[in-house]
Amino acid sequence: MPASPIRKLAPFADSAKKNGKKVLHLNIGQPDIETPEVMLNAIKNIDFKVWAYTPSQGNASYREKLTSYYNNLNYNLSPDNILITTGGSEAITIAMQTCLNPGDEIIIPEPFYANYNGFACMADIQVKPILSSIENGFALPAISEFEKVIGPRTKAIAICSPNNPTGYLYSRKEIEDLKELCLQHDLFLFSDEAYRDFCYDGNEFISPMHLDGLEEHAIVFDTVSKRYSACGARLGCLITKNKEILEAGLKFAQARLSPPAVAQIAAEAAVDTPKSYFDNVIAEYTKRRNILVEGLNKIPGVYCPTPGGAFYVVAKLPIDNADKFCQWMLEEFSYKNNTVMMAPATGFYGTVGQGEQEVRMAYVLHQEDLEQALECIEKGLEIYPGRTEA
Amino acid sequence: MPASPIRKLAPFADSAKKNGKKVLHLNIGQPDIETPEVMLNAIKNIDFKVWAYTPSQGNASYREKLTSYYNNLNYNLSPDNILITTGGSEAITIAMQTCLNPGDEIIIPEPFYANYNGFACMADIQVKPILSSIENGFALPAISEFEKVIGPRTKAIAICSPNNPTGYLYSRKEIEDLKELCLQHDLFLFSDEAYRDFCYDGNEFISPMHLDGLEEHAIVFDTVSKRYSACGARLGCLITKNKEILEAGLKFAQARLSPPAVAQIAAEAAVDTPKSYFDNVIAEYTKRRNILVEGLNKIPGVYCPTPGGAFYVVAKLPIDNADKFCQWMLEEFSYKNNTVMMAPATGFYGTVGQGEQEVRMAYVLHQEDLEQALECIEKGLEIYPGRTEA
Ligand SMILES: Cc1ncc(COP(=O)(O)O)c(C=O)c1O
Ligand SMILES: Cc1ncc(COP(=O)(O)O)c(C=O)c1O
Repeated sequence: MPASPIRKLAPFADSAKKNGKKVLHLNIGQPDIETPEVMLNAIKNIDFKVWAYTPSQGNASYREKLTSYYNNLNYNLSPDNILITTGGSEAITIAMQTCLNPGDEIIIPEPFYANYNGFACMADIQVKPILSSIENGFALPAISEFEKVIGPRTKAIAICSPNNPTGYLYSRKEIEDLKELCLQHDLFLFSDEAYRDFCYDGNEFISPMHLDGLEEHAIVFDTVSKRYSACGARLGCLITKNKEILEAGLKFAQARLSPPAVAQIAAEAAVDTPKSYFDNVIAEYTKRRNILVEGLNKIPGVYCPTPGGAFYVVAKLPIDNADKFCQWMLEEFSYKNNTVMMAPATGFYGTVGQGEQEVRMAYVLHQEDLEQALECIEKGLEIYPGRTEA
Repeated sequence: MPASPIRKLAPFADSAKKNGKKVLHLNIGQPDIETPEVMLNAIKNIDFKVWAYTPSQGNASYREKLTSYYNNLNYNLSPDNILITTGGSEAITIAMQTCLNPGDEIIIPEPFYANYNGFACMADIQVKPILSSIENGFALPAISEFEKVIGPRTKAIAICSPNNPTGYLYSRKEIEDLKELCLQHDLFLFSDEAYRDFCYDGNEFISPMHLDGLEEHAIVFDTVSKRYSACGARLGCLITKNKEILEAGLKFAQARLSPPAVAQIAAEAAVDTPKSYFDNVIAEYTKRRNILVEGLNKIPGVYCPTPGGAFYVVAKLPIDNADKFCQWMLEEFSYKNNTVMMAPATGFYGTVGQGEQEVRMAYVLHQEDLEQALECIEKGLEIYPGRTEA
């Protein structure tokens, strides 16, 4: 039997208690924030008798409502620019399959969302990582670094801002630099905006959709997963003004028939979520981020840049190997009967050997749990056998 | 910009009225049957506060409930044998990506479900069609025909029973013959069981899961779409006893994170749909099938075998070209202000030139509409300019 063709993906959540310890999960991206009531009510109030397929591109009413949503963000769209997908995940898969042919290459600053590897494998395309470093707070690598790896088979650059795993929020200047680069080399610019709604400290979110001249090159991925804490809805979309890509993408969408129907009804209602909901969420995450980042930087030998968005941080620890450390914390260590589960950053790098001293933490826990987690990490680092000097 | 890599797929539903005529839609597989109440109620009664991801392989409780469901069908499964997917569509995609490597071949009797082409394109594998003919009622082609196309890159055979588009239900003998063939050549046997619940005249449904010795080779695709008239749920599963395939498939499932959450709650409840629901559905479809098949065979020059299951028939018409005829019916013809939309069978054949005199019709309409459609087809055939002698 042929061996599995997929690469090893990043380790996935394990919610079991380990040996009776309480495990504080800093490793997963499932928000603990409640889904907006208007969305949950829309589920409870469904009134169809036949749970039918929707159009492959999504319900017309939902696409219209989304159009006004995005136009409030100055995306300047018509409903035709939006293809409704089964999660942001499917939008990425469809874009990779549509914009790239087998063997083509996509450049992605690392560390990056580990599942891009899986999607690239499905589309039979190659990921070319280029390093964004923790010393620069994971800012965009120099444009010259991109140019070094652009070759005849390079077809696209993918970014994610605010970033998973780093939380980094790209500046307008960085997006403009990418625009010039993409136009010069005729590359698609993929913009994964799963965390668009999570920008802190009043920082402005900038999308390639905000820049003129990228109409044929910019492909945006969005999702309701994080915005409305509705990960289980499995609803996202692909946005582009490029007609050829929309038509080709629609064919992939037609093959799988329809995105989820109830999710579309609920997500259409969710567009009316009151602003206060987001204000509360932003306030909550800002507080958590500050607790986590400040707490981490107080621990001897630990360095954690302050990210501008999302709900993740990547921190550098005084350790030999992040995979070993994370496993040791889970299996060998406890403090006050607690331990912490973190994601080794190695899973987010495309380059072997990178990120061995780094871990990703998601601040999807309440203040109290975060404080316990920090205490645990500090105590763990004190006695971890593989500790190195910072 | 690179051209779209996907093949042309079968024409898709267009529900618009054409020039004010009423269009009777015999072209789509969207049942008009109501979704079971127990399923709709489960949606209305959701009580979570956070619409979270479920495990990538599906909720444990749902997989357990499904296990008992399948074991009532004598599939002899444990929950580990079931990977919950986003529709049957995703189960097929995952199986193709997992069991075959790029460039590998899969043999499928034609006519076949047109979207297999799209899934094969995504997985970068080749479909090798072999002809099942209307004269034999679309029975399994002779095993010698399979053997003619089996080569070093052949990795799987795919069947769909009861079949879309033909409605043909494979006999135990046919499934046993396929078993011998697959074991002899070490091929996977994909069994698309989307229409398992729609078998008529007391005919027994036989799955590869019913035969011993296929544990490593049989991969079943299922879906709640047709069983519960819940196409919009987007919920299916991949079933196999092959551990290696389950593990590899799970990796693909992890990359897209989770199947839809509300759909799983609803589908778990739907397992308790009373038997009377299915008895009514079977009675209804049997009646419709009989009306359609008998009506078609009464039309001069038309031949339509009586299928054992699903809700489709493929009929041969006295016409020059099915694509032209279907378009002509839609655009040029009406009778009593009605016309009929059918799917040209050419879209279901992998071999160019096959099925040019055949159309697929889905009997997802009420008796009265079916009778009007038959009248319309008869009158249309009388004056269609491309009519041929039968
Ligand atoms: C960066 C990024 N993109 C895309 C996704 C996919 O999300 P979904 O498929 O739930 O929309 C995620 C989920 O965590 C993510 O972090
Ligand atoms: C033969 C067959 N397989 C699979 C599917 C996919 O169904 P779904 O993705 O809705 O489960 C269909 C839908 O019409 C079908 O006819």
